[in-house]
This record gives sequence, structure tokens and C-alpha cells, in this order.
Amino acid sequence: MSKGTVVLAYSGGLDTSCILVWLKEQGYDVITFLANIGQDEDFEAARKKAESLGAKKVFIEDLRAEFVEDFIWPAVQANAVYEDRYLLGTAVARPCIARRQVEIARSEGAQFVSHGATGKGNDQIRFELTCYALYPEVKAPWSMDANLMHIRWVALSHAPGDLYLMTKNPEDSPNVPDVLELEFRNGVPVKVTNVKEGKSKDSPLDIFSYLNEIGGKHGVGRIDIVENRFIGMKSRGIYETPGGTILLQAHLDMETFTVDKEVRRIKQGLGIKFSELVYNGFWYSPECDFVRFCIAKSQEKVEGKVQLSVFKGQVYILGRESPKSLYNEELVSMDVQGDYNPCDASGFIRINAVRLREHHRLQGFSGSDQV
Amino acid sequence: MSKGTVVLAYSGGLDTSCILVWLKEQGYDVITFLANIGQDEDFEAARKKAESLGAKKVFIEDLRAEFVEDFIWPAVQANAVYEDRYLLGTAVARPCIARRQVEIARSEGAQFVSHGATGKGNDQIRFELTCYALYPEVKAPWSMDANLMHIRWVALSHAPGDLYLMTKNPEDSPNVPDVLELEFRNGVPVKVTNVKEGKSKDSPLDIFSYLNEIGGKHGVGRIDIVENRFIGMKSRGIYETPGGTILLQAHLDMETFTVDKEVRRIKQGLGIKFSELVYNGFWYSPECDFVRFCIAKSQEKVEGKVQLSVFKGQVYILGRESPKSLYNEELVSMDVQGDYNPCDASGFIRINAVRLREHHRLQGFSGSDQV
Amino acid sequence: MSKGTVVLAYSGGLDTSCILVWLKEQGYDVITFLANIGQDEDFEAARKKAESLGAKKVFIEDLRAEFVEDFIWPAVQANAVYEDRYLLGTAVARPCIARRQVEIARSEGAQFVSHGATGKGNDQIRFELTCYALYPEVKAPWSMDANLMHIRWVALSHAPGDLYLMTKNPEDSPNVPDVLELEFRNGVPVKVTNVKEGKSKDSPLDIFSYLNEIGGKHGVGRIDIVENRFIGMKSRGIYETPGGTILLQAHLDMETFTVDKEVRRIKQGLGIKFSELVYNGFWYSPECDFVRFCIAKSQEKVEGKVQLSVFKGQVYILGRESPKSLYNEELVSMDVQGDYNPCDASGFIRINAVRLREHHRLQGFSGSDQV
Amino acid sequence: MSKGTVVLAYSGGLDTSCILVWLKEQGYDVITFLANIGQDEDFEAARKKAESLGAKKVFIEDLRAEFVEDFIWPAVQANAVYEDRYLLGTAVARPCIARRQVEIARSEGAQFVSHGATGKGNDQIRFELTCYALYPEVKAPWSMDANLMHIRWVALSHAPGDLYLMTKNPEDSPNVPDVLELEFRNGVPVKVTNVKEGKSKDSPLDIFSYLNEIGGKHGVGRIDIVENRFIGMKSRGIYETPGGTILLQAHLDMETFTVDKEVRRIKQGLGIKFSELVYNGFWYSPECDFVRFCIAKSQEKVEGKVQLSVFKGQVYILGRESPKSLYNEELVSMDVQGDYNPCDASGFIRINAVRLREHHRLQGFSGSDQV
Repeated sequence: MSKGTVVLAYSGGLDTSCILVWLKEQGYDVITFLANIGQDEDFEAARKKAESLGAKKVFIEDLRAEFVEDFIWPAVQANAVYEDRYLLGTAVARPCIARRQVEIARSEGAQFVSHGATGKGNDQIRFELTCYALYPEVKAPWSMDANLMHIRWVALSHAPGDLYLMTKNPEDSPNVPDVLELEFRNGVPVKVTNVKEGKSKDSPLDIFSYLNEIGGKHGVGRIDIVENRFIGMKSRGIYETPGGTILLQAHLDMETFTVDKEVRRIKQGLGIKFSELVYNGFWYSPECDFVRFCIAKSQEKVEGKVQLSVFKGQVYILGRESPKSLYNEELVSMDVQGDYNPCDASGFIRINAVRLREHHRLQGFSGSDQV
Repeated sequence: MSKGTVVLAYSGGLDTSCILVWLKEQGYDVITFLANIGQDEDFEAARKKAESLGAKKVFIEDLRAEFVEDFIWPAVQANAVYEDRYLLGTAVARPCIARRQVEIARSEGAQFVSHGATGKGNDQIRFELTCYALYPEVKAPWSMDANLMHIRWVALSHAPGDLYLMTKNPEDSPNVPDVLELEFRNGVPVKVTNVKEGKSKDSPLDIFSYLNEIGGKHGVGRIDIVENRFIGMKSRGIYETPGGTILLQAHLDMETFTVDKEVRRIKQGLGIKFSELVYNGFWYSPECDFVRFCIAKSQEKVEGKVQLSVFKGQVYILGRESPKSLYNEELVSMDVQGDYNPCDASGFIRINAVRLREHHRLQGFSGSDQV
Repeated sequence: MSKGTVVLAYSGGLDTSCILVWLKEQGYDVITFLANIGQDEDFEAARKKAESLGAKKVFIEDLRAEFVEDFIWPAVQANAVYEDRYLLGTAVARPCIARRQVEIARSEGAQFVSHGATGKGNDQIRFELTCYALYPEVKAPWSMDANLMHIRWVALSHAPGDLYLMTKNPEDSPNVPDVLELEFRNGVPVKVTNVKEGKSKDSPLDIFSYLNEIGGKHGVGRIDIVENRFIGMKSRGIYETPGGTILLQAHLDMETFTVDKEVRRIKQGLGIKFSELVYNGFWYSPECDFVRFCIAKSQEKVEGKVQLSVFKGQVYILGRESPKSLYNEELVSMDVQGDYNPCDASGFIRINAVRLREHHRLQGFSGSDQV
Repeated sequence: MSKGTVVLAYSGGLDTSCILVWLKEQGYDVITFLANIGQDEDFEAARKKAESLGAKKVFIEDLRAEFVEDFIWPAVQANAVYEDRYLLGTAVARPCIARRQVEIARSEGAQFVSHGATGKGNDQIRFELTCYALYPEVKAPWSMDANLMHIRWVALSHAPGDLYLMTKNPEDSPNVPDVLELEFRNGVPVKVTNVKEGKSKDSPLDIFSYLNEIGGKHGVGRIDIVENRFIGMKSRGIYETPGGTILLQAHLDMETFTVDKEVRRIKQGLGIKFSELVYNGFWYSPECDFVRFCIAKSQEKVEGKVQLSVFKGQVYILGRESPKSLYNEELVSMDVQGDYNPCDASGFIRINAVRLREHHRLQGFSGSDQV
């Protein structure tokens, strides 16, 4: 008799295959689920393997469009960067995959979900928090044995050669830049054009894929960092985020061009908070909903075009234009005075200095005030 | 009869020469002061020009070492970046120059200081706030006429050709990277070594100059941005910060490697505050003193070596080592369990999920709680 | 010939009467505007005085309802408190008055506005920033002479007797508490009931007036503080905010009862920002619009009833109930285990301790890590 | 044969007595530890009970002075308040007790510590995090059975009558206020004087005990709140903090009087962080060390005397004086102009309005900017 049905996030690799077998041995029915979020994978081979190992049902689904629109775009709006450097690529993938896995579990009447993420990593946390948030009654069976086996394989499967899959080595990248024009509306890209080739893309998935292609070709977005995991350990991470890096630079530029200085400052704090929440697995939480909502509001005027060149691992902003910019050439120009009275600047400075001068006066002060 | 003595921050250029003449015409005695903070300038020509225009006294002083140690190093500790992109090069120079100018004013018995910064820019504010903070009784004479003249010249003096002085165009930069090792103590660099050449530098000024040289050679640190000035206008800025960019990347890496996660998070907020204060001209203020003090405390364990390669406008971190790192290879390794019990992770996740599940439960809840 | 028309914020007192006369002497046509925001004033006497001093037109308008709904309610949602103590009473009144004054100026074709607030206070800033924000072309004529005269009178007009107008001395207040029930929806009060008397109010103005009455009767909301003005000076302020103090306590209670912990934490930061903006006169600014928008979002679930007693200057929360509370008596109760597994708490704690134990391990550590 | 030695935080009550017996049954040697932190307890009775139940050794220690100096004083400096209302009384006691318990465990060679705090409360977390932080190798044995028993007793032991032990009901409190003068140095109280009686105290423990006495006599510091526990649940808390409430009000006043506005603002954020850390049990953590260090720095000028009256549950600030105040009566007075030029205020306001007017201009703007 079955102990119940498990929906397993299945990769086709050794780890999750082992978990599949182990779950069946324990008496569970196993449904495998493999999400296509753009990774380089032989999906048909994975399907056959799952079936051959006894999966009761096999789901292989293309989530790429919703991954870009529902998860990557909000991260772009937020300028999401964890600890000043990590662009959160895998962190935003996890809730996307788990959301669909929970939907399958519900529709298939499965009481359990499982996955191959290990006990010390962030991915286990991200996966399980999403499942609990969206399907509070769910259980996640977990086996020390399976986990330990898995652990050993991970250790063996360390890639001995080049770790980078998406990006060329900048030293081997083209000697001629690509020049792109990225158009934004509401803080998300709506079109990318290769200026020299005249080629353009305008669906979210096409835009993001094209940016990955161009960024990859020029070796953009490689980092080798030490990061602080949610559970408090430091760990080394080697990441490549070619398209994300181009988008971050372009979005930062358009945002600073169009958003009010003080709104941007408050939004910067919310973006840092958003990045921590996403890194820690709290995409589906009241606070992350709230922060995303506020950030989206701040992006209403982030509209316009950014021109940039991509070359040897770098992204160079060349210029920008916007129908909603707060940039006022006349005001900033030194030839035109307009409403701006240089004398006001002196007043502004002297008032700002009142406190500084008082502070100076009190160094060495010996009397006593009473109020 | 003299109206008093003015110490004028003099550059030798058309603007401040004009101010010098105008101040003399108004009846002031003028002492000129020209600080060497590493700019490319013919200091002797400037001296002669000042004398020929009637300066009562001419000070030309090499502030490079104190500029690096007292102003750039604290900015390195802070990872100081304004609005996510600008590395504050000129913003940190201003208080350094004004500090010395005020000392001269005091020792020469001058009641006035003056400068050539314009009414709409940040530099006027930075200059004058520093002067008021350090010499509260000082006056800064300012003339609309002089200002307007100046303005026109500035407009005329726009560089028609290449704007960049310190950095090579990355397209023309060497096809072979330089590999550097930077050693930090207390969050500031104490030594830089060119790994291939074996060459090293260990005084602050030598280290910083060498990083400028290597960064410049590889086209590192060029940005073209729109920024928000203190007074609220947006303006375009084109900056090059070769050495600063290398230091920022290296310091970020060493800091994340050695500083506790939560300390770093709090310090990150202080660093953003520091950057705003410095951008806005408040280097000499009680709050900037306080923030610098706290940031310095956070840097006590930022000690170790970072290896990096500089190539085609980019800085790539290659590795790091530290006697004070919190990185625990055994703990992070998946083969060794040590104190870490995978079962704990499940408890950790389930407790973190308590709130998320309650939140889900309440969507669509219709009863009423009373306490 | 007239120099143009000025709309003067007129109080009927000596200061603004003097400004009225001075403006006429300078050749302006003067329209006076007196807003009723609940202060104790003889409005008809003020009308006659303005007319007798030559006002071309006299506006006296009851803004009480919009003051409560548009300005006080958002402050209640924000738990607005400046520097931990000041409830921003006058700070929220200023934009309300200036908004209407600007509307009058526009509809009457006046190019100028004026007021009696002094040069060192916050009220001048609040008044003028609002006018510039809503009517950028406006001018505000200002006279040193008028100002100085005004200043002297202010000095003379210091109230010699009891400073407090709205609140009884707690020592003389009733020896029996009033017990109120306040009902909230979307974070603002929709009804107040005096539990013993059965009396209730349900329009915003009636609710707020009644809370002022009850609070005043019991001596609630008196403070004597030193505060930091926008321009950097410290000044003493003596305030009484009876209704506002009751609302703050009740709202805090309902908010903590109904809003998710982490949402509340982020909102707390936004509330502090809101308070600073309002204090400094930036009610009408892009950032204050943004912050109000975000705060309003956070209040969607702040719904329910708070019971409280008002007695001898204090507000005591007696209990609360809500249809949207996240309070789960079963979960919190120690008899019922439900989903909560005490073993999870140990895991949660041990994971939180990983970082603390590593930190301890490294005190006195002498090896070197390399990654 | 013994399984090892446990140091048990023992209260003499039913819960911890049960744990003592259970630990012995499991084969542990048990050392009991009872800390006197000012609670009303029959310490000798507890000693006899522990001995009669088989404790191998009994420690009863007076930690009151170190509790006040090492734990309460830093909380006073921080204005520590959790979620705007809770003054963290029990939260600061926990690390004080656990610190000593760990010292005993080390000196007695005990490998284990135990306590009677339950699985859902904050106190278990605070206790265990402190132990792990200070004695990373320690183990904390925990029994579901013991816990469940304990749980039931707790349910039975609910105080049926008045919950408040330290404070009088304000309705029954004296009809005459006490007037106190509190003197601060470095942000902590160094002396309290009862102005009418002339009585004064000047050791930390005496000062705090006296404030508890006076506050209690007048019914100060009772709150009935819902709070968010670390683990995410909301729970009701009823607290009384008479001395702490007086100190919070007095310290807030002295701090605002003496500390620079912007320093105070940054410190306010650090104080909120401190409060969360302490509430969550992270007193002994790198980040709490860091925050305490920074806060202490901000308190260097918090020196002077505050006069206040305590009456019917309220604390009223009457006045303050300080040798280090930034309050400048001349500057703030409207009769004296000094360095302050009213014209500067206009410039200050107009510059602050530049951004607001631009924002207004752009509402409805249709052109396009390009840079």
C-alpha cells in the first residue's frame, strides 16, 4: 500500500534519480517534475530515465516565459544585488520552480514534495519555504541516507574543467563591441535592439535570451565571490549572469535618469531588503509582496531608452533618453539662470552650516545650558 | 585701504585668475593656494601667473599623501559609492583641499576664503561647508559678476576631444592582464604586488598611484552617469576612477570574506550614509565623524590578501586568503557534518515557515480574534 | 498702480495685521485667508479687522474635515512621531492651510502669497515649500522690517499664564477613567464609542474632535521637549496633542495585532521617514507621496476594535479584537501542539547559533584561510 | 554511571523542579543555579528544595549589580524599545543569567546546561543562543516529556488575581507627584535625587532600584500588548517596567538635548536594530557587540540633569540642563540675529524647492530628454 504521492523536483541527474528510487523503496508513489527555466538539459533523456526508474507520472514544463516576467523582471526593477555583488540568478529561479511544483502537487492530490537540494545550502531553504507558503499542509520527506549519498556524489561531480557555461572568457571574446539599445517601460525592458545589426526583440523571454547571448559572447557577468548564506556560513560562489548584468547597468541608468532623487533613495533601501528576502527564500512572504508592490510603484516613470556597448566583460553606458526624465538641461546649464538664483545657494549653504558651526563652537565649551 | 585678506583656491586657469583680479579690484589682499592632490598641472606656471596677477603670497602644497591616507582610505573602508555608481573622487578631494586652505587662512590671519566653484554645482557646497565647519567665523566673498564671467568661460572651455585623462580606452588597452595581489589590514591596503613582475609598493601614496597607473593602463573605472546633485537637480557626470575601482572590488571581497554577515549588513547601511554625506559636502560634520568611527570599527578584521586580474576595463577577483576569515571550509563542505545536523535545517525552515503558513491560513479567513 | 495681488495667511493677530498693512504700503493688493482647522478663534472679529485694515477680499474657510481626513489620518496610519516624541500636530496643519491658500491664489489670479511665520522656525519652511510645490511660479514677498517688527511682538506676546489650552492639568483631571472603543478600518478610525455612556461618533471630524475632548478632559498628550529643527538648531517645544496621543496608542495596538511582523518592520522605517518629511515641510513631494502610498498599502488589514481607558494623562490599552488578526490562540497556546514541533525550535536555534559559534571559534584563531 | 553533569537554571518552582528530577532519572548529575536579578523570591527555600530533590551542588548568586550595569545601562543608552512599546525587561535578563550559568558550567566541568523555558517562547531562544555563543561545545538536554508536563503546570499556574507585582494601580496611586532629578554621564544615570525629600542614590543598582520603587508607587510602566515573537507568532504580553519607563523618558530628553540631530538620527536606527537583536536573543553576537559599541560612542556628550515628575502612571519632563548641550538660546531666540540671516532661510527654502518645482513641471510633460 502506498504511503502517499510525492512530487519530486527531478533533474535527471544522479542525485534526484537516487532520491526517486529511495522514495519508491520507502513506499511512496513518485511524480517527477522537471522545469525548463532555460538551462542546458536533455529533457527527453530525463523523461525516459524517470519513467525507467518507476515514476508514476512525468511532468516536463517550459517555465521560461513566466520565469522572466514574474521573477526576473521584479528583480530588475529592484536592482537586486545581494551583498553588493551577487545578482540572485538561482535565488529567483527557486520560487518559480517550487510554485509550479506545488500546483502539480495540488492538482495531482499529492501530499508530499521532495527535491535534491542539500541541507547546508540556500536552495533547500528557498524550496521548502516556498512550498510551505503556498501549500501549508504539504510535507517534504527527507532522508538522511539519501542526503548523505547525495552529498558524496556532489563531491564527486565537481566540474574539473571550465566552470563557466554561459559566458566566454573575456580574453577570448570579440575585439569589436556590440552596441545595444534597451527600451524600458515601468522599469522593465520592453525592447532590445542591436544598433549595428538593426535586429530587435520585444517579448520578455526573447529580450532576456538575447541579452544572455550577447553578454555571454562578450564574457559579461562572471564573478567569483564569498557570500554569506542565510544560515550564517560563508561560502564561495562562482556565478555567471550575462543578461542580468547588462540589465542591471541599463536599469540603474534609466532609473537614476527618471526617478526623483529622494524616491530613489527610499527605493534603494527597499531594493536591498528585497535582495535579502529573495536570497533567503522569502519570495512568497507578506513582506516580499509588500516590498515588490512598493518597488513597482517607484518604477512608474522609469521609461525611455538606454544605449550601451558590451565589450570584453564590460557594459558601458553610452547615453539615454526619456520622455519622463527629471533632467532639465536648461536648469543644469550654467549659462541659463532661470529660476535659479546663485545667491540662494549661499543661503542654502549657510543654513546647512548653522549646525556645523554650533558643533565647532561647543568643542571646548565649558558653560551650562538649561531649558 | 585693504578690505581684508582672502585665501583663494587657485588653479592657474582662467576662472580663478579672473576671480583673483576681481578680488583685488574690490580691494582685498589675495593669497593664492594651489593644492597638489595628484592632478596633472604645471605648478610653477601657476605660481608665476598668480604672482603676475598680484597675489600677495602664493602657497603651492603637496597634499597627496594626506589625501590618500585621511580621505581616500576611509572611503575605501566604507565601500563608498554614491547612487550605486559614483565613486566620489572629487567629493573626497574637496574637504582635503579646504582643510588646508582654512589652516592657511588662520595662520595668515585672513578673514576670507574664496574659490572658483560655481553656484549650481556640488563643489561650492562641499568647499563652503568645510570652511564653515572648520573656521566658523570665516566669510566667503562671492560675486555674481565674477560668477557669470566664469560661467561663460566654463561653457567655452568644454573639452572638444577625448574627455578621459587617466584611463586608456579599453579597446586600445593591452591584450594581456596584469595580476595584482592587494594586502589589507584594518580594511585599508598596506601593500600591492604585481604578481608577474614581482614589483611591490607599500606606502599609501605609492599604492594608490600604482593602482591608478595599472587601472589606467587597462581602461578601468570609466563611467558616464546621470546623478542627483545635493540641491536636487539631475546632472550628467563623466568620471574615471581607475585605482578606486580596483580598490573597491578588492576591498568588497576581503570584507565579505572576513566580516561577520550581520555586522557587514549594518555597516553596509552606514556606508551608504557615509557616501551621501561625503557627496553632499558633510565630511566635517558630527554625523560623518560618527559614521567614520563606526565603519573603522567594523574593519578591524578586514585583513588578508586578494588576488585579482585587471584587463580591458574589468577587475576580476581570482582568490583571497586571510588569517581572520570566518570562512570555515570544513563547516561548508558537504562531506563533513561536524556540529551541523541536517535535521536542524528542517527545524530552522519549519520555524521560519510558521509565519508564512499562518499568513496563508488567514487569506479568506472570516472569524474574529479577540485578546 | 498695484504691484500685484498677495494672498496673505491671516490670523487676526498683531503679526499678520502688521504684514497686511506693510504689504499695502508696498503697493500690493492683499487678499486675506484664514483657515479654521479647529483652533479657538473669533473668526468674525478677524474678518472685520482684515476689512478695516484694507483687505481687498477676505476668505475664512472651514478646513477641519479635510484636515482630519487628508492630513491627520495618514499621520495616524504612519504612527507619525518625530524624534520619538513629537506628534507633528502643527507640522501636518501647515500643508493643509497652504494647499487651500494656493488654490485661492490661483483662482484669484494672485502672483504672491505671504504669511506670518518667522525666519528661524519650521513653519516658514513648511509653508513656502508647499506653495512652491503646488504653485511653482508663485512668489512669497518677505520683508526684513516686517519680520523684525513681528519678531519683537512675538517676544512680547509670550503667554504669561498657563500655556496649555486643550488639556486639563492631570492633577486636576477626573478621578474616574473614560473607557473608549475605537474601531479601525484600513488603519484609520471609523468609529469611537464611549463604552459607559454608549455615545458614539463616526465621521472623521466628529471622531477626532471627540478624542480631543476626552483626551483634553483627562490631561492626555502634554509634552515639554527639546527638538531639532530642520535648519539644525535645537529648540524647545511645548505641545498638547490629546486626541492624537489616544489615536497613536490605539493604532499601534491594532497594527501590531493585525499586520505581519516583517511588513510592520519595513513600515516602521517608512513611518520614521514620513515623520521627518512632514516635520521638514515635504508633505507635497515625490518622496512623501511615495511613502504615503506604501504606508497606506501596509494598512489594508488594520481592521478591528481597540478598547482603552483614559485616565490622569495616560492611555491604557485594555484589549483588542479583529477579523483579520494574525494572532492564533491555538498556535500560541502551550497546550496545543498543532503543526508546531518543539524539536523544530532546537533546530532553529542551532542553525542561528552556527554563526555565533564560528565567531567564538575565531577569537584567538591563528591559522589562515584561503579560497 | 553518570551521563555527565548538567547546570540547570533553577527557579524553585514546579517546572524546574520537575526538570531536575527528570534529569536525575535520565542519569545526569545536576547542579542548580538560581540567579538573583531582583525578583521577589525565597532563595533559601529554593536552596532547600533543590538539595532535597538531589541537586549535587546549589549555586544562588546575586547578579543584580552586573545586571544593571552590563545589561540595563546599554539598553538605556539605546532607548531600547521593541515594536515601539516593549521595554525588553526579560529580554535583557536572559543573557545576564545565561552568562553566569555558562561560567559555572565551565568551572564545574559540566558539559550540559538546561532550563525551564518552553519551546514556543522567546526565552528558550535567548537562553540557548547565549549558551552556544559563550560555550560553543555545550549541549542543552531537552525532553518532550518534561516539556509537556511543564506545559500543563504553566497552564495551571496562571495567576488568578492581579497580574502586576511591581506597580500600583494608577487609580490607587498617590495624589501627589514625586519630583526627581536624574543626572546622566555618557548616556547612563549616575545619580537620582528626590527633589522634595533631598534623598539621593548614586550606585547603578541603588539608582535603578529607587526608580523601580518610585515608578511602582505611582503605577508607571504597565503595558498590555500583542507582540511578534522571534519565531513569527503573535503573542500577548503584559509587562510592568516602572524604573525602565522613567529612564527611557529621561534619557530620550537628555539625548535630544545634547546629541547632534543627524548623529541622533543614525543612532536611532542603530537603537531599533539593537532592540530587535536583544529581543531575539542575540545579545552575544558580533553584530550586537558592534551596535553597542557604536551606540556607546554616540553617548559621549549625553551629560546633564533632567527634572521630571512621576504621577498617576505618567512621567512628565519638567526641564533639563547640560554642560554639553547644543541648545543655543541666543541662536534660537528671535530677538538676536547673530550669524543667522533671515534671507538665508529664503535661499535654503528655494534650493530645497528646486526639485519639487521640477517635479510639478513634469506632471503632464510630453517632450523627451536625451543625455
